[in-house]
Amino acid sequence: MIGVASKVPLKDRSVLSLVYTPGVAAPCLEIAKAPLSSFDYTMRGNTIALVSDGSSAFGLGNIGPLAALPMLEDACILFKTFGGVDAFPISLDTQDVEEIIRACMALRPTFGGICLSGIAAPRCFTVADHLARAVNIPVLHAEQHATAAAILGGLYNALKLVDKQPGDVRVVINGAGPGGIGIAHLLLYAGFQHLLVCDRLGILNRYRLLNMNWAKVDVARQTNTADITGTLADAVRGADVVIGLSSWNTITPKMVSSMAERPILFVLAVPDPEITPEAARAAGAAVVATGRPDVPNMITNALVLPGIFRGAMDIRATHVTQDMLLAAARAIAELVPLPQLSPQQIVPSVMDYAVAPRVARAVAEAARQSGVARVDKNPLEVEAQARATIYEGHRPVPPPSATRHSRGHAPDHRPAGRRL
Amino acid sequence: MIGVASKVPLKDRSVLSLVYTPGVAAPCLEIAKAPLSSFDYTMRGNTIALVSDGSSAFGLGNIGPLAALPMLEDACILFKTFGGVDAFPISLDTQDVEEIIRACMALRPTFGGICLSGIAAPRCFTVADHLARAVNIPVLHAEQHATAAAILGGLYNALKLVDKQPGDVRVVINGAGPGGIGIAHLLLYAGFQHLLVCDRLGILNRYRLLNMNWAKVDVARQTNTADITGTLADAVRGADVVIGLSSWNTITPKMVSSMAERPILFVLAVPDPEITPEAARAAGAAVVATGRPDVPNMITNALVLPGIFRGAMDIRATHVTQDMLLAAARAIAELVPLPQLSPQQIVPSVMDYAVAPRVARAVAEAARQSGVARVDKNPLEVEAQARATIYEGHRPVPPPSATRHSRGHAPDHRPAGRRL
Repeated sequence: MIGVASKVPLKDRSVLSLVYTPGVAAPCLEIAKAPLSSFDYTMRGNTIALVSDGSSAFGLGNIGPLAALPMLEDACILFKTFGGVDAFPISLDTQDVEEIIRACMALRPTFGGICLSGIAAPRCFTVADHLARAVNIPVLHAEQHATAAAILGGLYNALKLVDKQPGDVRVVINGAGPGGIGIAHLLLYAGFQHLLVCDRLGILNRYRLLNMNWAKVDVARQTNTADITGTLADAVRGADVVIGLSSWNTITPKMVSSMAERPILFVLAVPDPEITPEAARAAGAAVVATGRPDVPNMITNALVLPGIFRGAMDIRATHVTQDMLLAAARAIAELVPLPQLSPQQIVPSVMDYAVAPRVARAVAEAARQSGVARVDKNPLEVEAQARATIYEGHRPVPPPSATRHSRGHAPDHRPAGRRL
Repeated sequence: MIGVASKVPLKDRSVLSLVYTPGVAAPCLEIAKAPLSSFDYTMRGNTIALVSDGSSAFGLGNIGPLAALPMLEDACILFKTFGGVDAFPISLDTQDVEEIIRACMALRPTFGGICLSGIAAPRCFTVADHLARAVNIPVLHAEQHATAAAILGGLYNALKLVDKQPGDVRVVINGAGPGGIGIAHLLLYAGFQHLLVCDRLGILNRYRLLNMNWAKVDVARQTNTADITGTLADAVRGADVVIGLSSWNTITPKMVSSMAERPILFVLAVPDPEITPEAARAAGAAVVATGRPDVPNMITNALVLPGIFRGAMDIRATHVTQDMLLAAARAIAELVPLPQLSPQQIVPSVMDYAVAPRVARAVAEAARQSGVARVDKNPLEVEAQARATIYEGHRPVPPPSATRHSRGHAPDHRPAGRRL
C-alpha cells in the first residue's frame, strides 16, 4: 500500500554529487554540531514511526507482527493523505515490554514521533508511559490516547444534544483494554465526575482479585471510589452515557432501557458493535455512535491521529500532553457546526479534509501552552500549512533560519502540561 | 530527501472501507495463516531497511546516528531510483553490537532485507555475520560486501587491460576496516592467491599485537601465511595491484614506482584518495580508479547495491551468498563492452540505468544456484521487470498465485552457497 518516495530526481551526475558524495557531508556535519537541526535537514522533521507488536490488531486479537503489517500500512495512508505526515510502519518481532521500549528508543534518531498501535493491554500502557519519558519526541498509543480524543469530541456534541453537562453525567465504560482505560483517564482529566469502568467480569473495583492488572486497579481507584461491585447491567442502570470498547453483543436492549432518560450510547467494538444502532434506538437511545464506516457517527482515531501528529510535529513538541488531547477533542466537536449538529451527526466525516488542519492548529496551540513546543510558530500558520500540504500535495520547506529553536537547549525535561 | 508515498488515492468512503476497516482484515488473516504471503500482501516484498549506527559515516568518522541520517536518506534515493527498491533509513541510537543485532532482529517482520551501512569495524563484521544467521532475509554491509563486489568488477576489467590473471597477481590492500576486510575475503573466494592486507601499522600478520582485532587476525591468517612483517611500502614493492581503502595521502609516487610493471591502483578513500590519479599515472600506474564522481573510474557500492537487493528481493533470497557477490562483480565487468574498455573506463557509469537490472539478473541467477531462492522466477524476467520498474516508474504486481513458494517451508536454514 505504501512505498518510499524520492524527493530528488536523480538524472545526472551533478545531482548525484550534490545529494551523495561529496555533497551529503554538509548536512551531516551541521547536524553533528547542532542535533536539533536534524528536524530541518532530514526526513525526521516530518516522519513518524507507526509501531506495533501485532498483539491486538484491530479486532483480530494477537495475530503477530507479520500479520499486523497491512493494518499499519493502511494507517500510514491515512496519516499521509489527511495529515501530510510521513508515517512508516514498524512491526516488531517481540511482544516483550522491555524489548519494545528498547527498540523504539533505538529508533529515536530516525523519527520525529512515535505512534504505537495495536499493542495489547496492559503492556501498551507500560510501553507508552515509559517510552514517552525516555524520548523527547511525541509518543502516543493510537487505540488508547487518540481513540479517547475522538470519543470525547463526539461525546461533547452528544451531550449538547441531550442538554447535559460533563460534570453531571454518569458514564459507564464497558471494556478495560487500551480504549477503555484510555477514555477513562481522558474523561477524568476533562472533569467528568461520575465514571465506572467494567470488563467482562463486571465493575472494576480495587479489591477485586480476578482478571485484574495494574492499569485496571489504578483506574478503579480513581473512578470507583465507593468500591461498588456488580455486573455491567448493574453499572448501566441509570447511567447517562455508555461507552463500549469491548466486543460484539455485550449490551442488551434491556440494559439500554434501564439507563437515564435520553441516554447516549457509543458502541465502538469493531467490526460489530456491542448492540446494533437500530436496537439501541428502539430501546430508547437518544444518540448512538459506532466504529463502523457504513452508519452515521463513525468514531475512529483516524479522525484525530493525522491532526495530532501534524500539530505536534510542526511545533516540534517534546511530548504529547493531556491538554493536547483535550484540544483535539474540542476541535472535533467544533468541526460540526451547531446548525448541522444532530443525533445523526455528532462528529465530522473521517473523509473531511478540513479536520486534520483544524485539529493540528488546536494541538499546536495546546502544545505551546503546555510548554512542550520547541519552535515558536503561530498555530494559524500550522493550520494553513497543513491545508497547503494536504490539499495541494506539497509542503513548503522553510529555510532553517525560519525556525527559531535554541540549539541543544530544548525544554526536553520540563513539560508544564500533564503528560500522558 | 525522501517521504512515504501512498499507493492508494483515498478519495471516498468506499476506498476507506476497503483499505481500512473492515477491508484490512482479509490480508491480515491471510498472512496469519501463511506467513510468507506477507511478501505478496505488504510492502515487505519490496522494502529494505538501511541500518546504521552512525559510527563510520562515509569518511566523516563516528558522527553518531542523528548526523548519519542524511547519508542514509541519500542512499535510499539511489536504491529507489536505480533499483526500484523501497529502502527506508533506520539510524539506531546505539553503538552496541548486541543492541544493534537485537534491534534489527525486531525489525524482521517489517522488512524484506537489511542493508547495514556506515558501521565501524570490527563491530560491523560481528553484526553482519550474526544478523545474517538470525534472520531469513538478505543481509549485507554496504561498505564491506557491496563495495567489495564493485571493486572486484572493476578489477576484473583492469586485469584484462594489463593482461594479467587473477590467480597470478600480487594484491596489496591498504586499509583493514570494513572495505579492506570485505574485499580481502571476496578476493580470496574469487581465487586470488597472493594477498597482503595493511593497516596504518603496516602488514597484518597473526602474531602482531598492536592495533589488532579478531577480524584482522582472521584475515591475516588467510592472506599472510608466511607471516611477513613490514610497512605498506614493503608490501607494495613488486605488487601488481594496490587497493586503497584507508585515507588521504597514504600512498606515495615512490611506492607506485616500486610496483610491478603496468600496476593497477584503486585509491578509494573518500573524499580524497590515497594518491591523486595524476600523481599515480605520472609514477607509472597503468589503470587508476577512485571513489570520486569527478574523475574517470568511480568505484562505489552504489554501482551494485540497488541491483543486488533488486535481484535478491525478487527471488526472495533467504541470504546473500559469496556467489551472489561474485555474480554482481562479473556483471559489473561485463557491463563495459570490450571495445569500450580502456584505462579510463573499467566500470559502467553510476548514472547508467541499465546497471541495476543486469546486476539483479546475475544475482538472482546466483541465488538460485546457491539454493537460497524462495520463489521460482526466471532471472531474465527479474531483469525485464527491474527495467520496467526503473525506466517506467511502475512495478507490475503479479497475482499472489504467480509466485510459487511453498507455504511455511522455505529453505530457511539450508543455503548451499557459502554465506557471507
